[in-house]
Amino acid sequence: MASYRGVIPPVLTPLHTDGSLDLESLDRLVDHLIDGGVDGLFALGSSGQVAYFTDAERDTVVTRVAERAAGRVPVLVGTPDFTARRMAEQAVRAVDNGADSIVVTAPLYALNDTDEVNRHFRMVAAAVDVPVFAYDVPVRVHSKLGLGMLMDLAKDGVIAGVKDSSGDDVAFRRLVDANAAAGSPLSVLTGHEVMVDGMYLLGADGAVPGLGNVDPAGYARMWELAQAGDWVGVRAEQDRLDKLFEIVFVPQGRSGDAGGIGAFKAALEIMGVIESGAMPAPLEGLSPADHEAIGAILSEVGLR
Amino acid sequence: MASYRGVIPPVLTPLHTDGSLDLESLDRLVDHLIDGGVDGLFALGSSGQVAYFTDAERDTVVTRVAERAAGRVPVLVGTPDFTARRMAEQAVRAVDNGADSIVVTAPLYALNDTDEVNRHFRMVAAAVDVPVFAYDVPVRVHSKLGLGMLMDLAKDGVIAGVKDSSGDDVAFRRLVDANAAAGSPLSVLTGHEVMVDGMYLLGADGAVPGLGNVDPAGYARMWELAQAGDWVGVRAEQDRLDKLFEIVFVPQGRSGDAGGIGAFKAALEIMGVIESGAMPAPLEGLSPADHEAIGAILSEVGLR
Amino acid sequence: MASYRGVIPPVLTPLHTDGSLDLESLDRLVDHLIDGGVDGLFALGSSGQVAYFTDAERDTVVTRVAERAAGRVPVLVGTPDFTARRMAEQAVRAVDNGADSIVVTAPLYALNDTDEVNRHFRMVAAAVDVPVFAYDVPVRVHSKLGLGMLMDLAKDGVIAGVKDSSGDDVAFRRLVDANAAAGSPLSVLTGHEVMVDGMYLLGADGAVPGLGNVDPAGYARMWELAQAGDWVGVRAEQDRLDKLFEIVFVPQGRSGDAGGIGAFKAALEIMGVIESGAMPAPLEGLSPADHEAIGAILSEVGLR
Amino acid sequence: MASYRGVIPPVLTPLHTDGSLDLESLDRLVDHLIDGGVDGLFALGSSGQVAYFTDAERDTVVTRVAERAAGRVPVLVGTPDFTARRMAEQAVRAVDNGADSIVVTAPLYALNDTDEVNRHFRMVAAAVDVPVFAYDVPVRVHSKLGLGMLMDLAKDGVIAGVKDSSGDDVAFRRLVDANAAAGSPLSVLTGHEVMVDGMYLLGADGAVPGLGNVDPAGYARMWELAQAGDWVGVRAEQDRLDKLFEIVFVPQGRSGDAGGIGAFKAALEIMGVIESGAMPAPLEGLSPADHEAIGAILSEVGLR
Repeated sequence: MASYRGVIPPVLTPLHTDGSLDLESLDRLVDHLIDGGVDGLFALGSSGQVAYFTDAERDTVVTRVAERAAGRVPVLVGTPDFTARRMAEQAVRAVDNGADSIVVTAPLYALNDTDEVNRHFRMVAAAVDVPVFAYDVPVRVHSKLGLGMLMDLAKDGVIAGVKDSSGDDVAFRRLVDANAAAGSPLSVLTGHEVMVDGMYLLGADGAVPGLGNVDPAGYARMWELAQAGDWVGVRAEQDRLDKLFEIVFVPQGRSGDAGGIGAFKAALEIMGVIESGAMPAPLEGLSPADHEAIGAILSEVGLR
Repeated sequence: MASYRGVIPPVLTPLHTDGSLDLESLDRLVDHLIDGGVDGLFALGSSGQVAYFTDAERDTVVTRVAERAAGRVPVLVGTPDFTARRMAEQAVRAVDNGADSIVVTAPLYALNDTDEVNRHFRMVAAAVDVPVFAYDVPVRVHSKLGLGMLMDLAKDGVIAGVKDSSGDDVAFRRLVDANAAAGSPLSVLTGHEVMVDGMYLLGADGAVPGLGNVDPAGYARMWELAQAGDWVGVRAEQDRLDKLFEIVFVPQGRSGDAGGIGAFKAALEIMGVIESGAMPAPLEGLSPADHEAIGAILSEVGLR
Repeated sequence: MASYRGVIPPVLTPLHTDGSLDLESLDRLVDHLIDGGVDGLFALGSSGQVAYFTDAERDTVVTRVAERAAGRVPVLVGTPDFTARRMAEQAVRAVDNGADSIVVTAPLYALNDTDEVNRHFRMVAAAVDVPVFAYDVPVRVHSKLGLGMLMDLAKDGVIAGVKDSSGDDVAFRRLVDANAAAGSPLSVLTGHEVMVDGMYLLGADGAVPGLGNVDPAGYARMWELAQAGDWVGVRAEQDRLDKLFEIVFVPQGRSGDAGGIGAFKAALEIMGVIESGAMPAPLEGLSPADHEAIGAILSEVGLR
Repeated sequence: MASYRGVIPPVLTPLHTDGSLDLESLDRLVDHLIDGGVDGLFALGSSGQVAYFTDAERDTVVTRVAERAAGRVPVLVGTPDFTARRMAEQAVRAVDNGADSIVVTAPLYALNDTDEVNRHFRMVAAAVDVPVFAYDVPVRVHSKLGLGMLMDLAKDGVIAGVKDSSGDDVAFRRLVDANAAAGSPLSVLTGHEVMVDGMYLLGADGAVPGLGNVDPAGYARMWELAQAGDWVGVRAEQDRLDKLFEIVFVPQGRSGDAGGIGAFKAALEIMGVIESGAMPAPLEGLSPADHEAIGAILSEVGLR
């Protein structure tokens, strides 16, 4: 799994102000990330606002990211849908469009027990020939992937990794430990951009930081420092990135989907990477005042 | 909204044992319901296991139910997906396939605030020319539709009704009261099959009982008794149906999706309405012992 | 259990503006309730703000309510604390101070399974010789009392009734049904003031309405109409009370504990029953504007 | 705050098999901890099963721990109750009995907003003259302490530290960062025993590990290694402790309160530190088979 270690940011999906896909900006974003030194790209993740796009738009995004990446780094693609047979359709299309691996959540809308979720992952994985990552994101899916099930799937070769966005530190550590004890069949990635230092120390194989869209080079540096065992350096880099992360707290009174990703998009607009911080309806973009405050933070940390 | 009052059961989706759609059984089920005296059919609801079917299968089910209903009663169709633009696609296809109205949930996977959910309903409704029902089902969607937003949508003519499966009795009563105060723009339907008597007394316009698949005539009788103001009769009928509802507690240790709907399907198999109680993967059907126990309850209440 | 049927309001706890107990107002409130025709008094419930008072204050309240009731109606007393041995101490003191029965929640702070909660109720009940009500209030205790456990406790004579404030209509109906099937060992009371009509129809033995502090006569009338089988009358009375209930939605942006009970207290102050709508710290009383709006609603429904 | 840095285990409360306090075992446990090199003792925490003891028993425990500690390390005491005025009473008694500082949760049973919780902490703190720690334990209290409120209390000198048992890694990191930016008014302690290495790296001031009862020397070593900047050593020690932590997963099908703490008590019984692993009713102790499996793990990590 060497190719799935390190920094794999969830790629934002730039839009024109009319809500249509902005593929030129997407190209620039892909270059910005790869030039920054990331180790992979995760398209159609939660930060990519996958929930807001039609299947046709999903296809367009995956095709474009894969074409632009052009083998420089692997492209992981999220395939969220309700249940296994629907996700398998998403997965097959993703692979046809160029995905190097897919990222699969637990079922949504459905009310399943652990055995059913276990079979769910097996059904989706059986539909494709690429590595499968389990995506643990209870804030959106409303169930937590259990340690026993994940290791069962790992031992059977069903999954190649886990992207953990659960925010549950104890469960994450236990997964890292169990994976090590089993001979490390999994690439265990943390999705929490402000905690990467501690997670690297305890054995995480990499990170999937939404904030990595804004400062890929910072996250790439932190990973290299961790590989070199320079933990003081790791922590210092994380402290700098945490200051940058304050951009997500600039928007006040916005929804979970509007505030944080809105701030990432605004930052990239300000930095000139994407043309517009436009958001998919029914979300609305951030205010000029928010843009100004975000710009000030970018200046503070040297990104502008 | 006279055509959307009374009993509108969520139609189960019968399967062959290999998991494929059993359209002959679906025809028989539609006849069973209409012959039982129901006032409408709700296809692709949660009881219809909509989450487990592909878009192609959704299309097949809607087309078949609409053809078989043949105008005898209106056909409502569930259009669950992640967000408004995806749901609008589902809605357009449903109407093309024969839906007389559509049933729309809050966004899934997304993290939206009330204003965004309000706009979400408007976006979906704008895509079709048929009545739109708001479907309040927090156990699956993980957010509750607020009273203020529902009445705002009602006053603007965006929604024609609410299907309440929230289990929140206080909120339901307040919605009934607010709707009455606003001149009854909405058809307010309860989704809880064991509480219909109380909900009719306090002003519900009808019910969407999963158990109505098994005993449509019982629910039709209860509605007529309520219309006639025979509340003692209403309660007696509900008491009988509650005994029948015990079939859902026969399966032990099963998931939320496997136990209850599994019991409805098993009952219909035993009654000869559908060929098999088969469940969509990764769910599994009920055991022979469960079938036997369900059969005993059917005998007890005179349905066999 | 004839003495625990009908209307048993949770008695508010009036305070002076300095936060000390206002026992003269408490006397007047007790008289207001009994004169209104209620069938019992529930002191130290959630509406009585039991959480905010010291043990010494609890003792004072129970003693005063019992003295003022003077046997005219039975006095139930809430004994919330963390676990069984602490609640048993509360229960013994309550009985010493004049409680005719006690009202016991599941454990708090503790993380127990069903068997432990079952033993918990037995431990508390064993400490006293008066009837014990199980109080199901998940919004505060964060666990729901299961049907099987409640009926097990009922059959063994551990509990004499259930006060349901769970808002879970399906579970409530199943409890009513199971209790009837078991020969009605329990008095099953609903705590939701806006739904009493429907709950009476389906078999509730009574209600514990916080709003009953404001209009005890209305709830007493509704109970009598239900006993007489006049369901149209029951519904009409509930409709009137629902209009009155709008007082709890007057305060905007207040906490769960400040808004609703604050409105009840403000109403009683306006009606001259209690001297002040003062709230226990760190809660704050309602604003003059809120008082005015509440007064307008009281006038509208004829209580002023 | 130098005296509240490092390892401060939550002291278990040993019982005789009849459920009464075992003060001789408590003495031995206190010595075991202090001899192991801990920096403080936290009596009457969740691991101390504070919820299960009466006020008289609380007093006895605090008095005994303080006497036995005899100034060798500071004694922190948990004062959980429902609300501020009740907690203030607990706090005053704790200080009278020898507490060097108190540990205060958000209100329980109550439904408060942030401003009310802010005032709540101020009310409790005003009642005593010792340092106050805010205890963030949403799994028991069912609300999370917000970053803004904690820093507001810190800047006003109301609280001297935070014991974080929220399991929310992102919030913990943001608190550490905000505290540093404010000049470190707080001692920020993590309550998660399996994640201490990562938390130390990112700046935690110490740990409150329940597992520290079993292996205080291991946690003391890890703290010293962290102080020396030996992060590889820190991680190795944590890995060893994580293996030991597997004792809490030995009991199967037990409640949250019975399994984990039961395992700690069983381990200490096996190690001869306390006489019995007895649990307070309605909890039950672990089985002989569980004891055997726990003993095997103790042998494996060299504690037996």
